[in-house]
Amino acid sequence: MKENLSLLSPLDFIPADIHCAADYESLAARFIPAPGLEYIAGGSGQDKTLAANRRAFDQWFICPRLLPDLGDAHTRLGLLGREFAHPIFLAPVAYQKLAHPAGEIETARAASVMQSCMILSTLASQSLEEIAAIGTEEKWFQLYFQPNIEATLDLIRRAEAANYRALVVTLDATIRTPSLGALRSQFQMPADCVAVNLQDYEINSPRVLAAGESRIFKGIMQDAPTWADLQWLINQTHLPVIVKGVLHPDDALRIKKLGAAAVVVSNHGGRSFDGAMASLNCLAAIRAILGDEYPVLFDGGIRSGLDIFKAIALGADAVLIGRLQVYALSVAGALGVAHMLKLLREELELCMAQAGCANLQAIRNCRVEKVSI
Amino acid sequence: MKENLSLLSPLDFIPADIHCAADYESLAARFIPAPGLEYIAGGSGQDKTLAANRRAFDQWFICPRLLPDLGDAHTRLGLLGREFAHPIFLAPVAYQKLAHPAGEIETARAASVMQSCMILSTLASQSLEEIAAIGTEEKWFQLYFQPNIEATLDLIRRAEAANYRALVVTLDATIRTPSLGALRSQFQMPADCVAVNLQDYEINSPRVLAAGESRIFKGIMQDAPTWADLQWLINQTHLPVIVKGVLHPDDALRIKKLGAAAVVVSNHGGRSFDGAMASLNCLAAIRAILGDEYPVLFDGGIRSGLDIFKAIALGADAVLIGRLQVYALSVAGALGVAHMLKLLREELELCMAQAGCANLQAIRNCRVEKVSI
Amino acid sequence: MKENLSLLSPLDFIPADIHCAADYESLAARFIPAPGLEYIAGGSGQDKTLAANRRAFDQWFICPRLLPDLGDAHTRLGLLGREFAHPIFLAPVAYQKLAHPAGEIETARAASVMQSCMILSTLASQSLEEIAAIGTEEKWFQLYFQPNIEATLDLIRRAEAANYRALVVTLDATIRTPSLGALRSQFQMPADCVAVNLQDYEINSPRVLAAGESRIFKGIMQDAPTWADLQWLINQTHLPVIVKGVLHPDDALRIKKLGAAAVVVSNHGGRSFDGAMASLNCLAAIRAILGDEYPVLFDGGIRSGLDIFKAIALGADAVLIGRLQVYALSVAGALGVAHMLKLLREELELCMAQAGCANLQAIRNCRVEKVSI
Amino acid sequence: MKENLSLLSPLDFIPADIHCAADYESLAARFIPAPGLEYIAGGSGQDKTLAANRRAFDQWFICPRLLPDLGDAHTRLGLLGREFAHPIFLAPVAYQKLAHPAGEIETARAASVMQSCMILSTLASQSLEEIAAIGTEEKWFQLYFQPNIEATLDLIRRAEAANYRALVVTLDATIRTPSLGALRSQFQMPADCVAVNLQDYEINSPRVLAAGESRIFKGIMQDAPTWADLQWLINQTHLPVIVKGVLHPDDALRIKKLGAAAVVVSNHGGRSFDGAMASLNCLAAIRAILGDEYPVLFDGGIRSGLDIFKAIALGADAVLIGRLQVYALSVAGALGVAHMLKLLREELELCMAQAGCANLQAIRNCRVEKVSI
Repeated sequence: MKENLSLLSPLDFIPADIHCAADYESLAARFIPAPGLEYIAGGSGQDKTLAANRRAFDQWFICPRLLPDLGDAHTRLGLLGREFAHPIFLAPVAYQKLAHPAGEIETARAASVMQSCMILSTLASQSLEEIAAIGTEEKWFQLYFQPNIEATLDLIRRAEAANYRALVVTLDATIRTPSLGALRSQFQMPADCVAVNLQDYEINSPRVLAAGESRIFKGIMQDAPTWADLQWLINQTHLPVIVKGVLHPDDALRIKKLGAAAVVVSNHGGRSFDGAMASLNCLAAIRAILGDEYPVLFDGGIRSGLDIFKAIALGADAVLIGRLQVYALSVAGALGVAHMLKLLREELELCMAQAGCANLQAIRNCRVEKVSI
Repeated sequence: MKENLSLLSPLDFIPADIHCAADYESLAARFIPAPGLEYIAGGSGQDKTLAANRRAFDQWFICPRLLPDLGDAHTRLGLLGREFAHPIFLAPVAYQKLAHPAGEIETARAASVMQSCMILSTLASQSLEEIAAIGTEEKWFQLYFQPNIEATLDLIRRAEAANYRALVVTLDATIRTPSLGALRSQFQMPADCVAVNLQDYEINSPRVLAAGESRIFKGIMQDAPTWADLQWLINQTHLPVIVKGVLHPDDALRIKKLGAAAVVVSNHGGRSFDGAMASLNCLAAIRAILGDEYPVLFDGGIRSGLDIFKAIALGADAVLIGRLQVYALSVAGALGVAHMLKLLREELELCMAQAGCANLQAIRNCRVEKVSI
Repeated sequence: MKENLSLLSPLDFIPADIHCAADYESLAARFIPAPGLEYIAGGSGQDKTLAANRRAFDQWFICPRLLPDLGDAHTRLGLLGREFAHPIFLAPVAYQKLAHPAGEIETARAASVMQSCMILSTLASQSLEEIAAIGTEEKWFQLYFQPNIEATLDLIRRAEAANYRALVVTLDATIRTPSLGALRSQFQMPADCVAVNLQDYEINSPRVLAAGESRIFKGIMQDAPTWADLQWLINQTHLPVIVKGVLHPDDALRIKKLGAAAVVVSNHGGRSFDGAMASLNCLAAIRAILGDEYPVLFDGGIRSGLDIFKAIALGADAVLIGRLQVYALSVAGALGVAHMLKLLREELELCMAQAGCANLQAIRNCRVEKVSI
Repeated sequence: MKENLSLLSPLDFIPADIHCAADYESLAARFIPAPGLEYIAGGSGQDKTLAANRRAFDQWFICPRLLPDLGDAHTRLGLLGREFAHPIFLAPVAYQKLAHPAGEIETARAASVMQSCMILSTLASQSLEEIAAIGTEEKWFQLYFQPNIEATLDLIRRAEAANYRALVVTLDATIRTPSLGALRSQFQMPADCVAVNLQDYEINSPRVLAAGESRIFKGIMQDAPTWADLQWLINQTHLPVIVKGVLHPDDALRIKKLGAAAVVVSNHGGRSFDGAMASLNCLAAIRAILGDEYPVLFDGGIRSGLDIFKAIALGADAVLIGRLQVYALSVAGALGVAHMLKLLREELELCMAQAGCANLQAIRNCRVEKVSI
């Protein structure tokens, strides 16, 4: 990206040179300032897990079937007792005003139009109640445990009251560090981009460490949620609780047994533990241990309908779209996000037609092959 | 390719700098406009399968035998009850006027001279009857099921009447999308390059979709052929029916049982499902399930006699040459295609001599080794 | 590095653009003359083993656990009957005046502040007695067998007298050749950078070879230590003897049986045998043959806390930091080395928190996965 | 290489910037005209096997042993009942006047000084009798079967009379094609560079092919030797017959049973069958089928003592040096070749010392590991 290229404001039309959903990624550099883009595009540390997420997709190829009967073909799925039109959900992405002045409002409009389940982040830059009021499509609320329990409980009650239909509790992000790229770009969150839903909660004063105490173990991680907290959460709400950030099959099984409604296999898009396995590489073992029926969602590296197909083939019921959501938002607001979702769905349907799969279950049964690249 | 390089007209001589068949690929950029070349050279989408096709060849190496007895060495093969001089056939490539003003006429002349079985595309830009009249070498007709059955039947009867000796029905191309490269180059088919053999058939009016209906499942794929259509075709004609586009062993077996005469292991040169396995990587399993005797043809990524050798070693009886055919056509018309075929055959014979294989069966028994690259 | 960039003197502050321990590596080029940097950064010969050391780390990914109980989390380890605050030791690196005017004195100050076990090299450019007097943290002395036994014995006695707590005898470096990079840069050790601790020992006159005798076998290697020498050393001192340079499991087992207190799995940072396996790739087999309890240290390629985590996961109790030590020393003396150690420890703690490991034993039990890259 | 760089004449001293044997490769570009260098450096066709030969070496790493007893260390080997000082032989390389005005005379001088067994090519550009008279070191004669048997027999008798101690019959080169690089450089053998030892033999008039007959099968390969020819050769001479060009274990076993004295595992340095396996990848299977005692030589890709070590570890008794021989010859004639041999031997001894191998048998027993790169 040339430095002297002036940035564009969000468009109110779809640019002619978008041929596939992934094209929003390259175009976003025209709409998001370089430091912000580093923050969004980057993972954590040296971006090893970020890169592994993508590379994992590139290793898989599909053995298609001929002459499928697609008379009743569809992308529908049943999940938590409801039916969704397609398995392409919007991941909880924080601070969307960074990409567009209206932030999550635009995203919610797109989700509604495209029948996509939007998962609103605790760290949204727009009010959770305001977002809830947009459109009629089912929405979920992503929950971070707050330092004090009253805040957490208040968030739960507000989400319930606003008619969010599930709580997605993220457990892999107690401690995160930016990518070196973001650090070097000296990215700062703009002043108008704040976690408005947390503004009324008391902020705990930072823990004072004794000499020699670990800033990490005794500082930051003392606020980390526990298995008891997760159990508390499940008991506390009538909403289904979905656990996001699961990579280890034993954790997945324990979470299922605890009564969670679903898991999201995720390494936080490579933004949390730089060194974690590619989330795609964790899918099959988690599906195997949880059985065919338990809901398993997935995110991490998806850029196309083909990627969605591969994630489903390896065990996912549905997928969450993170970075592409923000890129499309930056380019053309609600219009961009809606178009991006439309493209992804058509790309998925195209793959299904070409692979001979009339529904998502058929994808799960599809023959895939890993090659070394 | 420099933009300001003026394009050349097809030559009437062989350029001095053609040292091997693959050299036609680089030379073609001097003879085909850039957008057309993008269309021809590209695969589909991000060209993942296109690249996989080539990479699959690069992984195999051959363990040659010494001191072979080549006294009776030859490249002949028996197929469908006839004998062919060599296993290098011309794949059905549409719209050849794109590469040369006389299109398929030149190709047919070359095929006849070089004793190569030409497979004429349904989408040829020259009349199937005119092509049939060129030379005495056996030709096959490639069939796409047409939207209405009368057109399909008429094509079959015309092919029979024109003395095509087999029907190659392509089943992997109901829905295809261009490569991003072709899209970005804004390629348009020239006005004089049309599917002349289909011009007299009624065009179905496009299906009107209800709101929310999938453009792919309910639109395009509603015209997709079915297993019943394939059975109908086999019953309808006395010609052997060869099914092109097979990658999955279970499909191959079902096709054999249905009475088809042969299969072509192919992913449409990476031009159909971008995400499909490399066709070379599908060969061995298909040969294994079909048994040693059933005819298996192959295409996808061949650029040399060595590639042909590898495809045969992994289970093919014969191979189809697609892109090289068009490149050579663009460079020097019939002369170029004939020369390209001559080079491929000599390259194959060279490999056979060097590997110690006196015939194609010996290639099949040859020891090959896959290395990670 | 631009040639005309003038070199900087060691700073007395931490540069703002150090975001992780590895950043000292790139920054060092501003502080160390190019030939010296070639000498330090290079391995041996064509740097094949040097590169393999790093690549081995890049292949491993970690499957983290959620919701760990980190209430008592720590990085402590017991070793040789003592407890160390963390497993990050300073490798014996020779001639540290090359990187900083005060050389090992600065390093020792940093080690003491950061509770890191420093291993002083026989080839230190500062007096072993002077280094021993710095700080209160436990130090070890690295021993090269000297050409005559009196010198070796005197070194042992001096190390004992100076209160070094272990002898680390390096056995993989009898014969070493510089990297081609160092040779081409025409690196020469500066006149003021000498092995001061050896200055008083008689230098053996070089062995005179008969015609046709191998310079290597009959020259250099005649001074190589033997298994008897190692046994002699163990018998000679009350200090624990740690053997550095072990790659083969059978050697490791023999060393354990001989009574050595620990082994260091190491290929001398790729500086000795260019062709040796990556030391990380040797760890698991050595841990397996020695059992869970025997102390195994590791060096070779560590640039981050993540690398330390991986080495421990594959069997190491503690790790030695070589090149980063020198780079940090060149940038900011004791301050730099201390900061680098602090960063590594925090990076390790970060990985532990993110992977859900409350202590080093939990790392050992962690699920890791090797991918081809 | 810059085009306008003027070429140098062979030096009478060793250039200062030769740090290892492989350095002769890069330096040769200053001494050999570009087309000649393409011819020498290139393999065949697209150089796939040439590249595979080198890559095969890069995949292997060695697990060294500590504290070896090198008191009696040496590089000697017994072969064909004689003892050789080291396992580094000079491969039969044709037309050495291409690299140096005195060609094979210089090479022979170097071989004698460095106790290397030189294998003189049938296509030498100097008289086989003249070469035989140089020095006292054992030499072998490489034999190509000639189109008529009298010429072959005369060559055998001349080699016997000139006191060559073995015949190395090359069987993998009946048909060879240049690399595309050599073709494109339009290399022509200089007029003064001829196969002088064949000048007196009658040249068969080229075979006249019938229409449609294969130029390869019925032309060139009709002159190919047969198993009967090999048996005839073994019966015809009292010299040990060594078969060069063996890659398949079944061929190796048949050759052993026929009474040949040894095999050379070789793919002609990638200059014959472009598509053949890397010769290093063929070694282990051939050693396994022939047993520990039968002499197995190796060539293909060796550039260093480390490569020699690896070839021996994988089953070779001795190795042949091809291209490095010519490069060193071009740089400094006999002096260069002798220096190159000295460097290789010292590099081998260095590896042995570092790996803990006191002799070649110990190398064979060494633990090596293949990694994917």
